[in-house]
Amino acid sequence: MKRIGIIGIGHGVFGRRSDATVQELAFEAFKLALDDAGIERKDLDASVIGSVPEYHKQRSLPGVVQEYLGLVPKPTWLTEVACASGSAAIRTAWMAIQSGFHNIVVIIGCQKMTELSTPEILGLMGRVGEVQWESIFGTTFPAYYAMFARKHMHEFGTTREQLVEVAIKNHFYGAKNPKALFQKEITMEKALESDEVALPFQIYDCCANADGAACVILASEERARDISKKPVWLDGLGCATASMSILRRPHMVGLPSAEAAASQAYEMAGVGPEDIKIAQVHDCFTIAEIMAYEDLGFCKKGEGEKFISERQSYLDGKTPVNVDGGLKAKGHPIGATGVSQTYEIAKQLRGEAGERQVPEADIGLTHNVGGIGQYCFVQILRRD
Amino acid sequence: MKRIGIIGIGHGVFGRRSDATVQELAFEAFKLALDDAGIERKDLDASVIGSVPEYHKQRSLPGVVQEYLGLVPKPTWLTEVACASGSAAIRTAWMAIQSGFHNIVVIIGCQKMTELSTPEILGLMGRVGEVQWESIFGTTFPAYYAMFARKHMHEFGTTREQLVEVAIKNHFYGAKNPKALFQKEITMEKALESDEVALPFQIYDCCANADGAACVILASEERARDISKKPVWLDGLGCATASMSILRRPHMVGLPSAEAAASQAYEMAGVGPEDIKIAQVHDCFTIAEIMAYEDLGFCKKGEGEKFISERQSYLDGKTPVNVDGGLKAKGHPIGATGVSQTYEIAKQLRGEAGERQVPEADIGLTHNVGGIGQYCFVQILRRD
Repeated sequence: MKRIGIIGIGHGVFGRRSDATVQELAFEAFKLALDDAGIERKDLDASVIGSVPEYHKQRSLPGVVQEYLGLVPKPTWLTEVACASGSAAIRTAWMAIQSGFHNIVVIIGCQKMTELSTPEILGLMGRVGEVQWESIFGTTFPAYYAMFARKHMHEFGTTREQLVEVAIKNHFYGAKNPKALFQKEITMEKALESDEVALPFQIYDCCANADGAACVILASEERARDISKKPVWLDGLGCATASMSILRRPHMVGLPSAEAAASQAYEMAGVGPEDIKIAQVHDCFTIAEIMAYEDLGFCKKGEGEKFISERQSYLDGKTPVNVDGGLKAKGHPIGATGVSQTYEIAKQLRGEAGERQVPEADIGLTHNVGGIGQYCFVQILRRD
Repeated sequence: MKRIGIIGIGHGVFGRRSDATVQELAFEAFKLALDDAGIERKDLDASVIGSVPEYHKQRSLPGVVQEYLGLVPKPTWLTEVACASGSAAIRTAWMAIQSGFHNIVVIIGCQKMTELSTPEILGLMGRVGEVQWESIFGTTFPAYYAMFARKHMHEFGTTREQLVEVAIKNHFYGAKNPKALFQKEITMEKALESDEVALPFQIYDCCANADGAACVILASEERARDISKKPVWLDGLGCATASMSILRRPHMVGLPSAEAAASQAYEMAGVGPEDIKIAQVHDCFTIAEIMAYEDLGFCKKGEGEKFISERQSYLDGKTPVNVDGGLKAKGHPIGATGVSQTYEIAKQLRGEAGERQVPEADIGLTHNVGGIGQYCFVQILRRD
């Protein structure tokens, strides 16, 4: 297969963006990516939008975004797989280029979530669980992940404090990221005194809804070498699914979809977990990051809690993870998240991450989960 | 480029399907397609779901469908571009195979619409127009297309009766299609006496919301020749966009996105409108089919009304169109429609359309419109 490269990246500020519509958020990230690539609209063949439609009053989002970005009459379409919609868009664009159909495709992950009322958001979130048999009993996202946490604590002796250590790390790095929703460090005391959500989770164990957009431009190898001085190659792509109901899964201390997607991506890129210098993982809840360390092979199953306690996922650790703040501190505008993760890895591999830079980062990984692990997309990026 | 072939097709009954959930509808079509192809689940590499998420209580539809179909842990994702979501799914699957990433991909278009209340449906439909500047003034789908109809009548002298002739044709064929929602012929008198919707449209000018699913299985040329005795090749794919607001378009007597998508598809397949033996076009309203004749080049702009009056789109006419009933009589479960169109063309090219068979059909076309022409996908199919 031919290589496909990232030639441009852009990222808006995540947060409560009452200053902008969803198409304006998309434009903000798009403009930055276009400038970063040093190309013009006319150089783009198509766009793919990663977003979850239900959150927007405006239906048929790709059309609105396409027009607002000045990309009519080029092709566009939207991909949706809950919180992994952004990575599905990247996968789709990768295939569009690999197929020879298009040469340069822009991916825009964009989402506006803060306009909805709390009951509306809760209703939408709750209905990601299986409506017919499961979510009618009250399982929402925090409740599902709280069960994972309880099980991990039960099986491996993971402590309440170890969960919070993930949040402390991610807020520590979020405080250094001007695009992040939360730019303040937190302490163990503050986290343990905060409001309860679904035990063992308190407020600081949970990522926050946000508005935001991120943009990545992909090109065929030939075009990428023409256009970019520092192309970052998308060399491994994995995607797998797991049952809707967590009761029909082999275990509850990890995501089978993540294990399978990681294995596909590693094989395709010809690398292993030990080669990953920087990772962005889907830390929608603190336990999710600990499970990700294990599912991705950064440590063995049941040792994720030690991995954070020993600070192995800090900048100077074995495998730095979410040193941009992660979903936890950066905010989680669901359709944008996978694209934001890719943006951050590209930044790192280009050596442009400033005080958060991982020294000599040459291979990076994104891990983007949809639903309660119903989907997982793992992608591996590499610089020359 | 390599050829990519259809090796299996399945289609459920469209209508008010209170007997089935959306995943059950998907299964119904999937099972038929799997049997038709003579393959098993294990032979499939991935699935792509065409659907518009907002219509379903169940969020994160691909996960539910994937599990209900027994396809976990294979990859899946959903594509959305309003009423063209099914064709976007086919385009995505085509690219997935063309890229060499997958060999056999199943596409399921599925939608359940009749569970929603009338105000809910109206709210959803209305918000396909641009919410910020346009749909707040009351433009719904019938209103938009009624403007197209008025303009066509004004510019080309198209008559009220000529619009109805489209509906009469499509109900005539729908009456012969056991999968159609409406299996009754209608008369000019009945149509002209029916309730007004948005003048010049009365009830019989408008297609109906429906529940339903259709399924198509695509394979690489090599696998298609192995598996299928009568593969149908997807040789031309076009996709283009137009402005959200119809006021920013060059004219209002056709869809610029359809003209552009058709031109791409014809060029890619190396054929012209005169080669098309059978077409499925997006007749969401009677005027839409007349505009499609023109946009696709079956006749000149401004002669679409004669094309139907002269019965050129009947089985024995120049270019038979929607001889399965079209959206008009078959019903329009929006995410399923593009896949249903592809199903019907494959049936025709395989010579399996029974009393609706077009003699010696060797090349067929689908024309699937999203929104008010914000998107159009045109695909050209051919048998050996």
